[in-house]
Amino acid sequence: MAKLIECVPNFSEGRNKSVIEAVVEEVRKAEGVKLLDYSSDADHNRTVVTMVGTPEGVEKAAFNLASKVAELIDMSVHHGEHPRMGATDVVPFIPISDVTMEECIELSKRVGKRIGEELNIPVYLYEDAASTVDRKNLAEVRKGQYEGFFEKIKKTEWKPDFGPIQMNVKSGCTAVGARVPLVAFNVNLGTNNLEIADSIAKKVRFIGGGLRFVKAMGVKLEDRGIVQVSMNLVNYEKTAVYRAYEMVKMEANRYGVPVVGSEVIGLVPMKSLIDAAEYYLQIENFSMDQILEKRVAE
Amino acid sequence: MAKLIECVPNFSEGRNKSVIEAVVEEVRKAEGVKLLDYSSDADHNRTVVTMVGTPEGVEKAAFNLASKVAELIDMSVHHGEHPRMGATDVVPFIPISDVTMEECIELSKRVGKRIGEELNIPVYLYEDAASTVDRKNLAEVRKGQYEGFFEKIKKTEWKPDFGPIQMNVKSGCTAVGARVPLVAFNVNLGTNNLEIADSIAKKVRFIGGGLRFVKAMGVKLEDRGIVQVSMNLVNYEKTAVYRAYEMVKMEANRYGVPVVGSEVIGLVPMKSLIDAAEYYLQIENFSMDQILEKRVAE
Repeated sequence: MAKLIECVPNFSEGRNKSVIEAVVEEVRKAEGVKLLDYSSDADHNRTVVTMVGTPEGVEKAAFNLASKVAELIDMSVHHGEHPRMGATDVVPFIPISDVTMEECIELSKRVGKRIGEELNIPVYLYEDAASTVDRKNLAEVRKGQYEGFFEKIKKTEWKPDFGPIQMNVKSGCTAVGARVPLVAFNVNLGTNNLEIADSIAKKVRFIGGGLRFVKAMGVKLEDRGIVQVSMNLVNYEKTAVYRAYEMVKMEANRYGVPVVGSEVIGLVPMKSLIDAAEYYLQIENFSMDQILEKRVAE
Repeated sequence: MAKLIECVPNFSEGRNKSVIEAVVEEVRKAEGVKLLDYSSDADHNRTVVTMVGTPEGVEKAAFNLASKVAELIDMSVHHGEHPRMGATDVVPFIPISDVTMEECIELSKRVGKRIGEELNIPVYLYEDAASTVDRKNLAEVRKGQYEGFFEKIKKTEWKPDFGPIQMNVKSGCTAVGARVPLVAFNVNLGTNNLEIADSIAKKVRFIGGGLRFVKAMGVKLEDRGIVQVSMNLVNYEKTAVYRAYEMVKMEANRYGVPVVGSEVIGLVPMKSLIDAAEYYLQIENFSMDQILEKRVAE
């Protein structure tokens, strides 16, 4: 099977269509890379790009995107609801097939170095590429946001991994890293009581004593008159989708509230759902090589 | 996505390696075709070949295989435990991606015609390609086997669809058809009582009043001291894997017997297992286009 890496850069422009298109064009025209999706949110004033391709293709396309963003976006006038610290805010590389996490970490370091040195932007490595434990969590790295970084960057513990050691006023700074694919999975409850969803979310998520790789919060679905436990599974291989689902169901039992459905948002790796089939059907000794489509693609 | 068809020819030689290799070589060397697997059974004296490829590639490779088999295998001296009516016994074509069943039916008719006219072998169309209801079921077509066909072929209702109207002594006759992918799925029970597995099999399978697209029988797993309900799901889109599993479990309850595991034999279409994940996780509005690997392959 071919070596494939996914890359999901987030950049700080979600309103100006001509800027957005010019940036996305850097991915569209890249060799060995396929643009799978891009979506902009005006309130967040932010665009998320999803591409997949060969290691070389993705490496070049990610740098070219950051380069175009540095040219066209000015953070000193940027406003938006989503937390952000730079014009190219975050660039994660994700192993998809025949690629190790180690290779993605090395790749993220090469791209981070180029963004730092060639574009003169302070770069922080995060998640699996992080240089210290404190830098693993993107939320920790980004805390203070663009506006706060003029002071934060001066602290010894927040010296950038690459690039200048003072803020780039126009571009802010950029987080570059490597991580496993994220699964966005929401479980719908048969109640309109947001407190119940919140309370379940707190028990299921890592920071509340729950599952190691689950982030969760309660959300109201106004139009359906129900609530949901909205989750990000940040390592579906270690914290399986079905385990998060069963734990929500178990906690909902306490309130006599039924699970009325669930939803998978965006793209998911095939294995995250095949794992659920294996669990519920009690399949022994299953190998992903038994999946017809996988064999055909090889 | 590229047009892809699977083809799984079965031929009547499972012992003579040089013959087997010579036949399989016709697939290996074919353009636009990939040999996914081939396995021979000495007791059955039979080899099953699995290939996948473009419609044109698979069409040529299937005929070339039948042609090589006609040259090398002599049915008049063939013995084996598995039911068979010809040297190339059965050639099913299976739509995999971007191909309709109608296209597979047309393809099977072209291949059947060539085997009939160019190789002088009586050909019966079966399953979705069948010319009459009686010829849909391969077991019905093959009844009497090679030895019985010298008489059976004379009956009006068993006049071949293509080729000569008398037996080919050396090659027997061949069934060519189109069908959906078959899923071989076995459910293991926590008992060594074969009668229980048999009794459950009879209730779950179509002919016993069970699920429309399930064939089933009880089987003893001597080495593990347990029994299993061994099933062929001949249309997993209409009779889902999870439904067959749940029905076996439900019937096992009557005997207080637990389901201790299950197994998927050989290759399975991704959707047959994703369907189970959707069911058990109660996923709403899921689309196969959300599978990352599928999007990447497109």
